[in-house]
Amino acid sequence: MNMQEQEDWDSIVLKGHEYYLPHLSVDCVVLGFHHNQLKVLLLKPKQKKNWALPGGFVKKDETLEDAAYRTLLERTGLSDTYLQQFHIFSNPNRTKHYRNDEEFESIGIKMPEENWLRKRFLTVGFYALVEFSKVVPMPNVLSDQCEWWDIDGIGELILDHNEILETAQKSIRLQLKYKPIGFNLLPTKFTLSELQKLYETLLGKKLDRGNFNRKMLSYGFLIQLEEKKSGVRHRAPYLYSFDIEQYNLALNEGLNGGI
Amino acid sequence: MNMQEQEDWDSIVLKGHEYYLPHLSVDCVVLGFHHNQLKVLLLKPKQKKNWALPGGFVKKDETLEDAAYRTLLERTGLSDTYLQQFHIFSNPNRTKHYRNDEEFESIGIKMPEENWLRKRFLTVGFYALVEFSKVVPMPNVLSDQCEWWDIDGIGELILDHNEILETAQKSIRLQLKYKPIGFNLLPTKFTLSELQKLYETLLGKKLDRGNFNRKMLSYGFLIQLEEKKSGVRHRAPYLYSFDIEQYNLALNEGLNGGI
Repeated sequence: MNMQEQEDWDSIVLKGHEYYLPHLSVDCVVLGFHHNQLKVLLLKPKQKKNWALPGGFVKKDETLEDAAYRTLLERTGLSDTYLQQFHIFSNPNRTKHYRNDEEFESIGIKMPEENWLRKRFLTVGFYALVEFSKVVPMPNVLSDQCEWWDIDGIGELILDHNEILETAQKSIRLQLKYKPIGFNLLPTKFTLSELQKLYETLLGKKLDRGNFNRKMLSYGFLIQLEEKKSGVRHRAPYLYSFDIEQYNLALNEGLNGGI
Repeated sequence: MNMQEQEDWDSIVLKGHEYYLPHLSVDCVVLGFHHNQLKVLLLKPKQKKNWALPGGFVKKDETLEDAAYRTLLERTGLSDTYLQQFHIFSNPNRTKHYRNDEEFESIGIKMPEENWLRKRFLTVGFYALVEFSKVVPMPNVLSDQCEWWDIDGIGELILDHNEILETAQKSIRLQLKYKPIGFNLLPTKFTLSELQKLYETLLGKKLDRGNFNRKMLSYGFLIQLEEKKSGVRHRAPYLYSFDIEQYNLALNEGLNGGI
């Protein structure tokens, strides 16, 4: 930890209660899609053996959404992500014993017994669907690493973060039935089979190709481009992009019939 | 206000910060269905001109769900309601100026400048779907009345409670697409046309009778009873109840195809 980081963290520990709300945090499930694989962005906290979802505190004068956007910007470099609050986790023991003296001593801080970070914390879960290639993962002062993980290979996370991740996935699956939110995970040009693979990954099941294509095209927000997918030997498939206006309409109004 | 109530309220104002979490409340959208009309349970706060959703604070050692169940029990007498967290409302100004000196002076309390009730409050919205006839509406110490209102006739509520109510209704409409939650609003015996009317009211649109009945019966949790609806002159319709085991399965797993 360099001197600036040390000062930042000292200030959160010792003065955080002056500018953050007590008892409340946000945690972000940041999902990306790369090489037909669903990815989640995780941090490795310095003094812990398990990885963690990127989280943050809530300033006294900001909304939860602003706190989540701020956290995301700091960890990903992205400022225009699709972000959705999905659940607040309130088990009274969820953060008990998480902040321990050893952790703080190891980074040179003696944390007072009555420190605000030792209290019970409730956390508001947000999921963010981002374009994988645009993200620049950045660790924070209390973590060594910030990396994309294959979602099937994450193992045990800190606290209740596995539960938060699972709840986010469930919530996304339900949302997908009436909102085309998955498109936020795609690059600006994509093939219909890439889109289908993404939906299959998010929903955890195979979909019929004919039905899927028919439904997707019926919503009116897909634009077929002149351009075809390059680097494909036979019968290169067409690329699509989406009509942002029509797409936002579908996001707000919901899909007629779902997927 | 009698002496006991005065003491209760004094204790919340002056000592509440010792046993409740700061900055956090729950608000419950309690919906019932009666004479083909959707109803919402509201309180009339003593010193306010508008009505309010029943709400409460969160004890330092309880979950948000427990806080919401406790609030509901106190206002409705019901202990086994279907309750669902749907959103947390966090506008930093949402409770600004709500607790004013006049209000407290009028009930004989001088509220200290730095009192915990004057701070910013975020509120977690829950909706509860209850059987209308089982509810015994009970006002709390700070309200004169607790009553069912037709949902279309409520007018302006306090704070952001209209927004909370609308968000709950939106959330219920989406939930209905994959979960048969609406059944919690019905008495134990009902006709298919009462069920359809309920769904139409919740969804805000007409449904085709044949399709609706076919779908509902296909889920396997409806039981046709020997008994028919009484007090109907011609062609009395059959009454139905639901198979709780099958119903809970559908609640947990979701409906195949939705409604």
